[in-house]
Parts: sequence; structure tokens; C-alpha cells
Amino acid sequence: MNDELIYQEHLIPMTRQELIKHLRAALRDKRFEHVLRVEQTAIELAKQYGVDVEAASIAGLCHDYAKQRADEDFIKVIKAKKLDPDLLNYGNAIWHGFVGAEMVKDELGVHDEDILNAIRFHTTGAAYMTKLAQIIYMADYIEPGRDFPAVKKARKLTRQDLGAGVAYQTKHTLLYLIKNNAPIHPQTLATFNAWVPQYGKEID
Amino acid sequence: MNDELIYQEHLIPMTRQELIKHLRAALRDKRFEHVLRVEQTAIELAKQYGVDVEAASIAGLCHDYAKQRADEDFIKVIKAKKLDPDLLNYGNAIWHGFVGAEMVKDELGVHDEDILNAIRFHTTGAAYMTKLAQIIYMADYIEPGRDFPAVKKARKLTRQDLGAGVAYQTKHTLLYLIKNNAPIHPQTLATFNAWVPQYGKEID
Repeated sequence: MNDELIYQEHLIPMTRQELIKHLRAALRDKRFEHVLRVEQTAIELAKQYGVDVEAASIAGLCHDYAKQRADEDFIKVIKAKKLDPDLLNYGNAIWHGFVGAEMVKDELGVHDEDILNAIRFHTTGAAYMTKLAQIIYMADYIEPGRDFPAVKKARKLTRQDLGAGVAYQTKHTLLYLIKNNAPIHPQTLATFNAWVPQYGKEID
Repeated sequence: MNDELIYQEHLIPMTRQELIKHLRAALRDKRFEHVLRVEQTAIELAKQYGVDVEAASIAGLCHDYAKQRADEDFIKVIKAKKLDPDLLNYGNAIWHGFVGAEMVKDELGVHDEDILNAIRFHTTGAAYMTKLAQIIYMADYIEPGRDFPAVKKARKLTRQDLGAGVAYQTKHTLLYLIKNNAPIHPQTLATFNAWVPQYGKEID
């Protein structure tokens, strides 16, 4: 049914069918299917929370657009665009959001800052996220293909209160990283401090 | 036996007996006793790891010197000394280290930067910590009065490898804060990223 979506020119200068072709070319089948599920979940959340459905569709489809790019591609863009050089200390997990948004802008013609920020922040979150950014952050975490212990509660909370979903995901992602002795991006911490103490009671 | 320690003038311009008097006046009995245990543990670790025993004694005794000061005292010092204004977003838990070090400097005459940094970093840790700073950070966590699930392993690790102890404490402190939905100071995260991935294998 999403086939019937007609994007407004100022959001992206192509049809959904054309965007789908770009994604199929850029992504392996499994990831392409994940992207379709994130789009679908994002559209449902957009309808629930009064967010533009086309923007949710575009952001959902594009959030992983750069996920399979070579490290060198990201490094080139970080240098050419003079992005924060601290990005060079991280890898694909961080780059495909923050740097991927630049590729979505330049290669797919998306210039809407709300959509681009939703792509930038979809892995780390951010202290300030619009409804659209919250929706993409959550849709990526709870889309129907996801299967991990916390996902059921995450789905329920997100449908009850979008912000509580954001807090819940952030808390559980941090716990996961810490248990695995994995480095944590400062923005993940900023997201934690902005959302988790505030929603503490609702997410336990 | 620590009574026999004679401090060198360049570390602190008073005897241990005089320093003890200052601490007894500044702290409630329970905290004063904690401070003595931290000093003792710090001295033992200093001997094991080849660190100046007097410095360990002074830093151990002074680490909580400001712990019972009123919030207004800390805020005054932050403003008067033009310390990082972000400090104002935190409370006693952060202030008694970062701002407390300034009070130790001004009121007790300690100007040794290694000791002052050990006091500054004793709660959050830091990406870079000298052996002395590591010792105070660990002594505060493992002194014999401490009793929490992780403390036995922390004691063992610290005696085997000081850095592994630092990593272990940092990981468990972060887990504790996150489980309790408590705000996390960026420096605690910086400590995590600098120590935990590096020592990951040793601390699990």
C-alpha cells in the first residue's frame, strides 16, 4: 500500500518506486527487507503521533542507505565536508548515520533537515529529537523482524508514549554496550542523560 | 602506624596529626573513619605499585575533605575560580571531587597537581590517570568498609593489575547508574571508553 505514496518534490525529487530502486541497488536483500519494515513501522507511528507520513516513509527507507558503504567512502566524506574529525575515531555503526545522511543528501537529493537529522541520529539518538527522529530511532529498534528480550516491552511502550520508548531503547542499548565492554559514543550518553532520568518511572 | 609518616613540606605544609585534626573537624565520624580506611588502602597500594607513600596518605585523607560542604560553597568556588560552568548542572557527588580539590588547595595548602588530580578524579575517574589517581579511585571503592556484590572481585583485580581494577570499577559504576536511570557525567563515560574496552578480557 505504500506504493501509493506520492512524495512531495521538496522532500525528495523522485517517486517512491525510484527511491526503492536506489535502495535495492545499495543494499543486500536482508537489509533491504529490514528497511521496508522500518518504513512500515515508521508510517504507523507517524499516523499515531501526527507526523508527516511521506517524511516518515522517506526517512525510514533512507536510514540505512549508506550502511554497506566502504570505510574509505565515509572517511572521504568526513574530510571533504569538514565534519567533526572525532568521527574518524569510530566506524560504520556511527558513520552510516552521521555521514550516511550526507550521502542521502548528495546522492538522493534529500535536503529536508528533519529527515536528515532522523537519519543522523537513528543509531545514537540525540538529546533533542523531533517526533520524526524519535519515530525512526524507535522503528529501527522495534520493526517486526527484531527479536531480542527487550523488544516486546519496547513495542508496547513506544505505542503508549513515544518518549518512553526512546528512553527505554537508550537505556537498554547502553546496558548492552557496557556489558560487552564496547566503546560508547558521547552522543549516546547525551541521549541517555536527556531522556532516561526524565522517563525513569515509566520504563522500569 | 601511619602516625609516623612525616610529610614533605612541598606536599602539604602541616604534619599528619594536624591534617587529621582538619579532617575530624570537617567530617562526621562515619566519613572520617572511611577516610582513614581509604588512606590505609591507598598506602598499601602505593607500596605495591611503587608510588610515593606520603602522597598516597595525603590524597587518601583529603579525597573527601569537601564532601559535607554546603552546595552554596561549591557554587561560589565554581564561579569565583571560573571553573567549567557545566559543573553547575551537577551536585555534591561531582563537586566534592572537582571543586573539593580547590578547597584542599586553598584551605590545606596542597599544591601538588598529582594529589589534586587524584582528588578531582576520585568519583568519575578520567581517561588519563596517574598511578596515584588510580590508587585513590580504587582505594575509595575497595576499602575494607565497603560491602557490595562486586567488591570482592574488585579487590582481587586491583591487587593483580591496577588498571584492570580501574576498568572493573568504571564498568560496574556505569551499570549501576544506568540501572537506576541516574544522569551520567561525561567524564565517567570518558573513563569507560579509555579503560574498559582495553581491559575487557581481564574484567569479565
